[in-house]
Amino acid sequence: MSNELAAPPPEHERPWEELIGALEADDAAKIAELVDALTSEEARRAFSRLSSDDQQRVVAALSPEQAAELLESLPEAQAVDLLGEMDPETAADIVEQLPDNIGADLLQEMDEVDSEAVLAELDDADEADHLRELTGYPWDSAGGLMTEAFAAFSVTHSVGQVLQELSENAEDYSDLDVQYVYAVSDLGELRGVLRLRDLVLTPRLRKIEDIMIKEPASVQALDDLPKLVGIFNERDYLGLPVLNEAGIIQGVISREAVNDAAAEHLAEDYLHASGIVGGEELRSMPMKDRALRRLSWLAPNIILNLVAASVIAMYEDTIQAVIALAVFLPIVSDMSGCSGNQAVAVSIRELTLGLIRPSEFIRVVWKEGILGLINGLVLGILLGSIAAIWKSNVWLGLVIGSALWLNTILSVLLGGLVPLLLKRFKIDPALASGPILTTCTDMCGFFLVLNLASVVLAKLA
Amino acid sequence: MSNELAAPPPEHERPWEELIGALEADDAAKIAELVDALTSEEARRAFSRLSSDDQQRVVAALSPEQAAELLESLPEAQAVDLLGEMDPETAADIVEQLPDNIGADLLQEMDEVDSEAVLAELDDADEADHLRELTGYPWDSAGGLMTEAFAAFSVTHSVGQVLQELSENAEDYSDLDVQYVYAVSDLGELRGVLRLRDLVLTPRLRKIEDIMIKEPASVQALDDLPKLVGIFNERDYLGLPVLNEAGIIQGVISREAVNDAAAEHLAEDYLHASGIVGGEELRSMPMKDRALRRLSWLAPNIILNLVAASVIAMYEDTIQAVIALAVFLPIVSDMSGCSGNQAVAVSIRELTLGLIRPSEFIRVVWKEGILGLINGLVLGILLGSIAAIWKSNVWLGLVIGSALWLNTILSVLLGGLVPLLLKRFKIDPALASGPILTTCTDMCGFFLVLNLASVVLAKLA
Repeated sequence: MSNELAAPPPEHERPWEELIGALEADDAAKIAELVDALTSEEARRAFSRLSSDDQQRVVAALSPEQAAELLESLPEAQAVDLLGEMDPETAADIVEQLPDNIGADLLQEMDEVDSEAVLAELDDADEADHLRELTGYPWDSAGGLMTEAFAAFSVTHSVGQVLQELSENAEDYSDLDVQYVYAVSDLGELRGVLRLRDLVLTPRLRKIEDIMIKEPASVQALDDLPKLVGIFNERDYLGLPVLNEAGIIQGVISREAVNDAAAEHLAEDYLHASGIVGGEELRSMPMKDRALRRLSWLAPNIILNLVAASVIAMYEDTIQAVIALAVFLPIVSDMSGCSGNQAVAVSIRELTLGLIRPSEFIRVVWKEGILGLINGLVLGILLGSIAAIWKSNVWLGLVIGSALWLNTILSVLLGGLVPLLLKRFKIDPALASGPILTTCTDMCGFFLVLNLASVVLAKLA
Repeated sequence: MSNELAAPPPEHERPWEELIGALEADDAAKIAELVDALTSEEARRAFSRLSSDDQQRVVAALSPEQAAELLESLPEAQAVDLLGEMDPETAADIVEQLPDNIGADLLQEMDEVDSEAVLAELDDADEADHLRELTGYPWDSAGGLMTEAFAAFSVTHSVGQVLQELSENAEDYSDLDVQYVYAVSDLGELRGVLRLRDLVLTPRLRKIEDIMIKEPASVQALDDLPKLVGIFNERDYLGLPVLNEAGIIQGVISREAVNDAAAEHLAEDYLHASGIVGGEELRSMPMKDRALRRLSWLAPNIILNLVAASVIAMYEDTIQAVIALAVFLPIVSDMSGCSGNQAVAVSIRELTLGLIRPSEFIRVVWKEGILGLINGLVLGILLGSIAAIWKSNVWLGLVIGSALWLNTILSVLLGGLVPLLLKRFKIDPALASGPILTTCTDMCGFFLVLNLASVVLAKLA
């Protein structure tokens, strides 16, 4: 996990095979040595290949410092699992070695009971209180995304004092990207902000109070991600101070942290839309957890499917008379579902980009309605013609074609609107839009085909 | 589009309504003044509400500098459309005002004929050649993501000369994040890299050749995104020099640029998986383009659906005998599709995270196969019991339940493997996995239900 500017040595094929060898030989010293030599990517890939037990044995062979470094390079979901399965004392030793914000992220994702047990084992009670406070912020809020490394000085300082303190403690500041310096009251309340270059160009004896920018822009620790994205979109800030309710500065949030969190959300949207819920799934996780998580989304879906298919059961006589309808039912419902999903994706994307507000129904109805009319007509003529030619029955073509046309209009309208509605009710649109859409379009598709068919049944049979 | 540290003024409701007023009054000066006052977000939202003609009228009222600034704040797809519809001369004036890498990105997304027309109108032939070269790099390659602002000096320079040139041209370097300085041969070939802090701490008369890190890490201009993600994952580089085939330094690529591009790809994965292809869709785009793009994905899908449903047509007699099967056909195929899509999402995610290589079939077969066995059994028992109770026929329950069980195993295997296969054949997994998976699982689901039913037909009817 070195950081050098020189080119890396030629890639070593599967360095973790040695690790497995050392595990078999139960050689703790060798394990520690091998893990130390792994790059972050090698460590990630190696770990995704070890069983849960072997992962624990590797971590047990490491010093707390080494274990902390390893945890930082693993996907968060895996680090959380590892930590959760250790005894609290060992976990506490490792957490002490992690940067506070990373430690807090991991603790937050654990069972509350488990994380409290770890916090109780921390040697330093102040540190434990501090981590407890940090875990109170959702990971994607300003408090969860901020860094606590920043430079703040009393408003009564002179420029010279600030510069001297900065250079005397240069090492403390070497990690942080000091572009701004914050001026605070004795209680730590934010009073102003100064650019580093303004400090350098000002006579040393002036008070920073006189040259600082007053009433600086800031965010609240509990501000959520959409709000943060909006604020950073609105102006070209590189970073902003994060305040608690009392106006006391807690940390600094960077544009990069906000962008990274937004990217995480997009990745989550995709997983949720595909029915992967309750956190990231890696194939290295225990089979029971993976199966249960996937089932938690599939089982309710089976109910929704039954509701939709019950429409078919009401028209068994119609199908009995025209058995060809059974062939077209799944096609109509699947094609409408596809059209609706396109509209869902565009709405979610426009919501994420801030191009649309959750209240703008009329705009969506207008833009999707016309598109549904056109695409539904094209697809309806296509499928209707195939049906008419296949069974040499124009009426069958008319029934199938017009059912697909009408159902396409309905499904793009629903697909466009459902994410907006869910957003207003604070439900994750990516997670819930698909099942809702599919159930409605299936029901309506089945109903349209079978009802239209029953009306002209004499011409079809 | 100002960049201040002070808090923004209170939000002004719908500032673009004034813009529409100015458009109606055809007041060019007022339009320019209003656009200048918009923040990036307001500009984006305002533009997504104007017709294509009105957008052109707004741009026509602006100076090339203002128009360039506006284009930078719009979503790329919209900026490309705007530029493509202008006459080439006007477009060229605006492109001249854009940063080279942004200009090249937009030109690359335009029709080749259109972009060549714009390049031909550029006043500066060298600039045109340079943009032509940049448009030769895919947007997500090292060449497409690099910045051309970097500090390079001849290896024969002394430390003192480098520091002097840096401070004399401080303004040129103020925009770039100078952390590293590159040492090059007379032809511009990369020879070494120096940290800025090493320069400061070295006697001024030493040659940089003596203190530079030789054989520095670098990337090739045509390196693609997965390769770049891998390289930046492997080591903690902040930025790397980008070389052309002759080893001459072309620019510098930052970790942030690579991360942003990876996030773009994830967002694209989601759109592709939902059937939005051929570039981003915004509802402000012309209806014809939106309808055609969506149809380009739906129309082939209708064919795939017909292929799958043709299985039903082969078993019309079986359905005729047991009409209840028509109710369960869509449920079995839909549920299997859902299970398969979960596996697709996990595979795409693991590919993106670099946890799995496209060749690791056996691992996926193993991990998904067992999961499919378990989940298929649970879902099969659930749906089978419902079928058996509803129709008071145990055999129907057995047919439906075992069909769903077998088809779930098949669909999670396919869902896990198809993205890996597509990746090996260099096809976008997010785009193609869904339709391939759905067609296969539909076909097999229909076949399993109807074939099993036909075997025990006497017990069902």
